[in-house]
Amino acid sequence: MKRQHIFITNDDGVDAPGIRSLINFVRPLADITVVAPQKGHSGQSHAVTVGVPIRLKRLVNEPGYRIFSCSGTPVDCVKLGLQQLCEEPPDLLISGINHGSNAGINLFYSGTMAAASEGTINGIPSIGFSLCNYSHNADFSACKNPVIEIVNNALENPLPKGVTYNVNIPDLKPEEIKGIKECRMGIGRWVEEFDKRTDPFGRDYFWLTGRYDPVEVVDGTDHHALENGFVSMVPLTLDMTNYTYLKNIAENVQKG
Amino acid sequence: MKRQHIFITNDDGVDAPGIRSLINFVRPLADITVVAPQKGHSGQSHAVTVGVPIRLKRLVNEPGYRIFSCSGTPVDCVKLGLQQLCEEPPDLLISGINHGSNAGINLFYSGTMAAASEGTINGIPSIGFSLCNYSHNADFSACKNPVIEIVNNALENPLPKGVTYNVNIPDLKPEEIKGIKECRMGIGRWVEEFDKRTDPFGRDYFWLTGRYDPVEVVDGTDHHALENGFVSMVPLTLDMTNYTYLKNIAENVQKG
Repeated sequence: MKRQHIFITNDDGVDAPGIRSLINFVRPLADITVVAPQKGHSGQSHAVTVGVPIRLKRLVNEPGYRIFSCSGTPVDCVKLGLQQLCEEPPDLLISGINHGSNAGINLFYSGTMAAASEGTINGIPSIGFSLCNYSHNADFSACKNPVIEIVNNALENPLPKGVTYNVNIPDLKPEEIKGIKECRMGIGRWVEEFDKRTDPFGRDYFWLTGRYDPVEVVDGTDHHALENGFVSMVPLTLDMTNYTYLKNIAENVQKG
Repeated sequence: MKRQHIFITNDDGVDAPGIRSLINFVRPLADITVVAPQKGHSGQSHAVTVGVPIRLKRLVNEPGYRIFSCSGTPVDCVKLGLQQLCEEPPDLLISGINHGSNAGINLFYSGTMAAASEGTINGIPSIGFSLCNYSHNADFSACKNPVIEIVNNALENPLPKGVTYNVNIPDLKPEEIKGIKECRMGIGRWVEEFDKRTDPFGRDYFWLTGRYDPVEVVDGTDHHALENGFVSMVPLTLDMTNYTYLKNIAENVQKG
């Protein structure tokens, strides 16, 4: 039987400890192609590079194990990698492990999750992984077992078309993790605190800072699972239509 | 009665004809605050500026009519503008008019629609407008009536919490537009055709080009409405959970 093929990317850059951990965890399971940004692209969401050419650089080229850096965004890495480096579609695309949570509304800003969604748009079963610790030197050891379990499962039972998984792992010791929980996405928001300063020439400038407010922490949400020591797994859709509201409008139109 | 207040942004930049048309159309309806990128940010999606300070520049400051340019992304414009320039939340946020379609899967890449979603995340009723013509010199006259109708309606009947509207306007003459249609988002994809070249030093580089393939053009989708001469209005959700799949998993777990 032909060995399966996993495509790996991230948004923290090809040298980030998170993607290095992810590669190490899944390398025994399948052939690997890594295409990741040459530098960090946090907060880049689904951005693509328009009007500037993109370059690829081959870093590793062993049988069944290739690593490329790409000058573009995480979504560029997926588009270019799938088109130029994969003769057949890979069996699975995984993105991460992100340095920091992508639970709740965070996924809107996340390059890691945008790359995973881009895989899904291209018909590849795709999963994004994030550790709830923003530090560059975070300890990824607690991610090992959940990542291997989820990736093995996805290789054996391919995800349905159009579904992306958002997996977040709490910042705990391996033995403190209570299990993996299927969840819905909790609604939250960033409470921004712009730090307003004045430059030496008398002009104002602003630093974007802030903290995440997980507004919805009720049972069933990813926020709640993570606070209670579980790995959260949220199946995401590409269809952002609000059907509840679409239905209400149609009913009103009929009534009117 | 206090005059209502509309916040306006876009992703093509503060000088783009699209946002200038939008401002002209709605200025008679309400007080206006514009905060838009100082240069174009197409394809920037929900990107935020991390690690670099952001600047605001005041361009117009009349009673009830203010325009600022911002050095950041469309989402930065919304965050910074709402926090630093609005003592009370505006009654409505509108983004656009984008030079080019944001129907279907295009909204994933769109700074215009990300800015509208950011408004919704911040509790502001928000609408993104796009004209299905990518040209800088597109004719926005067909947008006037639909924009005024939709904005007037949203000022009189505030949108429900958590809903963003994605409005796309076909590239037709005003008299050719058949009406406004509530739709669901059609699923589509970009068919990329990377243009691979070699630089004078022998190294490869790639230009991202391509064409949009509106895979789903069935009745009820935005793709279908636009192809048939209607303005499409899709209510969007912030909650990207795939509930169909979440339900299937829960049922399987119960069965198992």
